[in-house]
Amino acid sequence: MEQNLEMTIALLARTPATLDTMLRDLPDAWTQANEGEKTFNAYQVVGHLAHGERADWMPRAKMILEFGESRAFVPFDRFAQDRESAGKSLAQLLDEFADLREQNLNDLRALNLSAEQMQLRGKHPRLGSVTLSQLLATWVSHDMTHLHQLARIMANQYRDAVGPWTVFLGVLQCNGHSEG
Amino acid sequence: MEQNLEMTIALLARTPATLDTMLRDLPDAWTQANEGEKTFNAYQVVGHLAHGERADWMPRAKMILEFGESRAFVPFDRFAQDRESAGKSLAQLLDEFADLREQNLNDLRALNLSAEQMQLRGKHPRLGSVTLSQLLATWVSHDMTHLHQLARIMANQYRDAVGPWTVFLGVLQCNGHSEG
Repeated sequence: MEQNLEMTIALLARTPATLDTMLRDLPDAWTQANEGEKTFNAYQVVGHLAHGERADWMPRAKMILEFGESRAFVPFDRFAQDRESAGKSLAQLLDEFADLREQNLNDLRALNLSAEQMQLRGKHPRLGSVTLSQLLATWVSHDMTHLHQLARIMANQYRDAVGPWTVFLGVLQCNGHSEG
Repeated sequence: MEQNLEMTIALLARTPATLDTMLRDLPDAWTQANEGEKTFNAYQVVGHLAHGERADWMPRAKMILEFGESRAFVPFDRFAQDRESAGKSLAQLLDEFADLREQNLNDLRALNLSAEQMQLRGKHPRLGSVTLSQLLATWVSHDMTHLHQLARIMANQYRDAVGPWTVFLGVLQCNGHSEG
């Protein structure tokens, strides 16, 4: 399926509320748990998503429109949330993520992108030439990667508790295969 | 981590609202799409979860309390939703799932299970002897398996659209490793 702006916005617009419904006021035993050393807990995932709204998706879209391939994107900082989230509660991060996403989607709609603009190219610091359409599709898939990760983090806490049922539970066979 | 009834109920109680937030009124292009032949779309996932509320989790818990290991559970019917969902909209299935889950959690709370009862055993038709505690942990992990699957189904629709970003997106490396 091609990237379709209406579909992209429909899913992007829901992610903050989906995570809010799942995580707000959930016991810390769920939201502070991770999958082992150097892995994110739910609190870090939300901080990471909020950082992406500040630094990655729309800033990169605007760079493509302004500079094309003449300037590479600023590399994605996968640990920025450790600074930006300092002192904040999970509820605050959920609010921040929701506000930033809403503003970014307003900006995206206001650009009123044409099919030709979707094919404009920018320069990714590691991947090289990429299109605006690919960037917007990746924004959605990045949300889904982290929703997929959140489900896996939760399931992992009951890895032993499910006993023999482990073999039937797909989420427990998933191997943390993500860069972010 | 041990199965803990308070934690279990906290997460189980949120799943219907989480899926409702993510899926209600989302374009059909997202909710009717699957991952290929013999895989579920989002509509089927919600129907499958509603069926589990009717036929699997609390009915099995009650069988353990009443019959112990003397009677095996009725096998999980992974295709029951194709009959039960016939003619229903996604919105209706989301409502059904929410109502059934709420009733089941009320029933679970009313059982006021003791630590000793958690260790009572029942008979799974394929896995053999299992405890009530394992069954309740599996209920949570089954929800998470399907949330994990929903994120993967959505991401899969943009598998080609993300272009070179595929390599960074964990959800696209996940291999549909689930029995249901």
